[in-house]
Amino acid sequence: MTKLKLALKAEAESVDRVLDQLLEEPEGPEAQVVKAMRYSALGGGKRIRPFLVMMSARLFGVAEQSALRVAAALEMVHCYSLIHDDLPAMDDDDLRRGRATCHIEFDEATAILAGDALLTRAFEVLAEEETHSSPQVRCELISELAKASGMNGMVGGQMIDLMAETRELGIPEITRLQRLKTGALIVYACRAGAILGKAEEVKNHALRNYGHDLGLAFQIADDLLDVEASEEETGKKVGKDAERGKATFVSLLGIERAREQALMLSDQACSHLDLFDRDTELLRVMAKYVVNRRS
Amino acid sequence: MTKLKLALKAEAESVDRVLDQLLEEPEGPEAQVVKAMRYSALGGGKRIRPFLVMMSARLFGVAEQSALRVAAALEMVHCYSLIHDDLPAMDDDDLRRGRATCHIEFDEATAILAGDALLTRAFEVLAEEETHSSPQVRCELISELAKASGMNGMVGGQMIDLMAETRELGIPEITRLQRLKTGALIVYACRAGAILGKAEEVKNHALRNYGHDLGLAFQIADDLLDVEASEEETGKKVGKDAERGKATFVSLLGIERAREQALMLSDQACSHLDLFDRDTELLRVMAKYVVNRRS
Repeated sequence: MTKLKLALKAEAESVDRVLDQLLEEPEGPEAQVVKAMRYSALGGGKRIRPFLVMMSARLFGVAEQSALRVAAALEMVHCYSLIHDDLPAMDDDDLRRGRATCHIEFDEATAILAGDALLTRAFEVLAEEETHSSPQVRCELISELAKASGMNGMVGGQMIDLMAETRELGIPEITRLQRLKTGALIVYACRAGAILGKAEEVKNHALRNYGHDLGLAFQIADDLLDVEASEEETGKKVGKDAERGKATFVSLLGIERAREQALMLSDQACSHLDLFDRDTELLRVMAKYVVNRRS
Repeated sequence: MTKLKLALKAEAESVDRVLDQLLEEPEGPEAQVVKAMRYSALGGGKRIRPFLVMMSARLFGVAEQSALRVAAALEMVHCYSLIHDDLPAMDDDDLRRGRATCHIEFDEATAILAGDALLTRAFEVLAEEETHSSPQVRCELISELAKASGMNGMVGGQMIDLMAETRELGIPEITRLQRLKTGALIVYACRAGAILGKAEEVKNHALRNYGHDLGLAFQIADDLLDVEASEEETGKKVGKDAERGKATFVSLLGIERAREQALMLSDQACSHLDLFDRDTELLRVMAKYVVNRRS
């Protein structure tokens, strides 16, 4: 196994332990919604976002326990967005991470509530003293996460994406859509360590830029996988974009130029890390990985 | 107009002004989701929860601007819960506050996203400096709101409610269901002023008890309205509980005993206010109003 894969696996196991503790099943019939939350949040996934939190936190010597709770909260928000995006009224997907999506495994009502509760729990976790950060830092973590995931972030991006099925988008519009839909949360993951570590502005900014380029490279690679990879490799349905006639980086640029663009962004992401003294190797390898992955 | 109605109207107007500012429509196609958020959050309603925030804040001399932002955030959470509860997969309602529900006026996907974004925006607002409270107080407001609305609060209650359609509930189960589903957020509204005002524990506790009794009285009155009032009066569909064969306080106790119970709880709610020196008249009148209202 490569160094990156080993590190990803180790961090994923740590985050899963924290998620397991934070999503405790209550007594009573409402346990059903927590079962659905656990099904979706503990059901695998590459855990790229939590990994980015952990790596950026390490650049500033942030305590691991502190970073792990932020990583777990972020993963809850990511999982909530997957559950809601997969709903019949949205992207109507029944396969995710190689398993039935939440509304297929449970039912639609439970899936809606499980998403709602994961989002809510994420903010609760960040607000609590157990994050071992000052209240000021906790407020900033909450405010920035809300911005990245709300109407001017992830939700706004998903809204544009839904509306894109009935209107033609060009490269500038697709870039903006992806910056909101997937980019904002990836940028947040990269910046979380800087917030926790009260980083000086230039380092905060460097991580924001790294996250921005990484997020776009990640998305172009995702579009390529939708065209080139199999359902077995990705654990989700492929060929969806073409089927729905949706414009993507690949449909607009072609496979070759899209791949070039992703590689260029990956290099550019790494260049933003040059100003750090500490070891940024895993963040650099991550930037290569996101464009070369097969799942 | 009675003194309470005048006060309710005045506070509702102030909260609506703040909501209007906090839900600004962005440029671009994602404006659609904000239109839906505004449709649901600014579309009337009695604004009882924001009113409780404002009244409890006044007991501790909290600055109005501070309390108004908390009241607006709480109303966003209430409106998000209404939007999601009305969805076809949940209670499948098409009438709310005398108008089409969000998914009827827009579509299901937009309604899901509008609910998600209202919940997210609420936490963002509470985390921001403009709340004019210390970061410590803001973290407590966020943590308590998340507890009241998440898997062990409102969402948990809605989950039990959905499962109640297929199992028999008795008075203890219904009481617990309502404590989670509607009670927790009402208790939060009553306690918000105490949190903002850094109240001593005995006063915090008194407001919690007031909110607890008020919330239950409110719910019994709601069950009575579902049996006795018209769609014109309530602005929503009536007779739903009986139609679905769902156990309620009224189906279990009968109309007379349910009404007696609501009045008893209303009196008991007021008794918790006896320890306050400042004027608690409007909170007492509110406790009478919730059991005597026709809408």
